[in-house]
Amino acid sequence: MLPVRSICHCRVCGAPTDYRVPPDDNRPRATCTACGLVHYENPLNVVGTVPVWQDQVLLCRRAIEPRHGLWTLPAGFMELGETTAEGALRETVEESGAHVELEGLFTLLNVVRVGQVHLFYRARMLDLHLDPGPETLEARLFREDEIPWDELAFRTVRETLRLFFENRRAGQYDVHTLDIA
Amino acid sequence: MLPVRSICHCRVCGAPTDYRVPPDDNRPRATCTACGLVHYENPLNVVGTVPVWQDQVLLCRRAIEPRHGLWTLPAGFMELGETTAEGALRETVEESGAHVELEGLFTLLNVVRVGQVHLFYRARMLDLHLDPGPETLEARLFREDEIPWDELAFRTVRETLRLFFENRRAGQYDVHTLDIA
Repeated sequence: MLPVRSICHCRVCGAPTDYRVPPDDNRPRATCTACGLVHYENPLNVVGTVPVWQDQVLLCRRAIEPRHGLWTLPAGFMELGETTAEGALRETVEESGAHVELEGLFTLLNVVRVGQVHLFYRARMLDLHLDPGPETLEARLFREDEIPWDELAFRTVRETLRLFFENRRAGQYDVHTLDIA
Repeated sequence: MLPVRSICHCRVCGAPTDYRVPPDDNRPRATCTACGLVHYENPLNVVGTVPVWQDQVLLCRRAIEPRHGLWTLPAGFMELGETTAEGALRETVEESGAHVELEGLFTLLNVVRVGQVHLFYRARMLDLHLDPGPETLEARLFREDEIPWDELAFRTVRETLRLFFENRRAGQYDVHTLDIA
C-alpha cells in the first residue's frame, strides 16, 4: 500500500503536489500545484488460488520479503490487462509451476490496514508437476493434518485454508467474504 | 484507469521516469531515472449495491460524466481505509441517501478494458427515504418490468440487474463472477 500522503510530485508534469479536497469530493487528494491534476490512491487486489490434489493443498515457501521462509498460497498483485481469475492463475504458475484448472471464487478478504483486497479461487491440480519460480524456496503438498499453521505467511492464507477444510468436510464450497482486522 | 505509460515523473522526487522491466519482474514499470523508485499501476475496484424494496430495485440517474443522464446502481471507486462492503454502503448513501442494510456479495465483474473490478452487494432498503447527492439527478424505485434496460449506464449494472431478477425468480441468490469483454 502507498503510505498516506506519499505522492509529492505530479506524475504528468513533475511539479510538487499538495493534499486538498477537490470540488465535489470529500477527502484530500494529492493535487498538482502547477497543472491541477488530482491523483487518487485506492486499494489493490491480491489474487491467488488454493491448488488441490486429492486430499492435499499446495503451499509455497516464500523466497522474498515480507515473511521470507514462511508458507503461503500462491498469490500476488493483480495486473492491468487481466481478470481476477487470470491473475490468480498467472500467480499460481509463476510461484509454483503447477498445472491447474481454476474452479470458483472462494474467498474475498478485506485487509484494510494495508489497503488490500485478497481474492482466492479454488483450483484443481491436473498433475504433480511443480516448478517453483524465483519468489518460492519450495512448493509442496500438505494434507490438512500437515498444514504448518504456525508458519503461515498471512492471515488471509490462514483464513482461506481454514474455510477450505471446513467446507470440504461439509461437502460444499461457498463464497466467503471476511474482514481481517 | 490510468492510460498505459501515463507516469512521466517520480511521485517522490519529481524526476522523469522511464519504463523498464525491473530485476525479477516481467513487465515494464515506470522507474525513476534519479532515485530508482518503481511505480506500479494496478486495477481499481468499483463497489456498489443493488438496493431492494419489496419487488423494486433502486436506480440513480447520473448527474456526472461518463454516461450523464443514464441510470445506474449506486457505486463508485473503493477508497483506502474501508472494506468493499463499507465502500458499497458509503457510495449508496452518497448517491441516493437511501437507508440500507447490506446483505451478501452478489456479483464480481471484471472489466479488463478499463482496468476495473466491479463488486455489487445486495442491500435491503429499511424505508423509503431518499436524498440523492450531487452525482445523482434522480433516484427512484423500479419493478422488473419498469427497468430502463436501454438507458442503463454500464454493462456491469445491466448484468447485475439481470442476474438479480433471475435469482429472485429462482428463490436463491448466488455469488456470480463475470467478465465483461
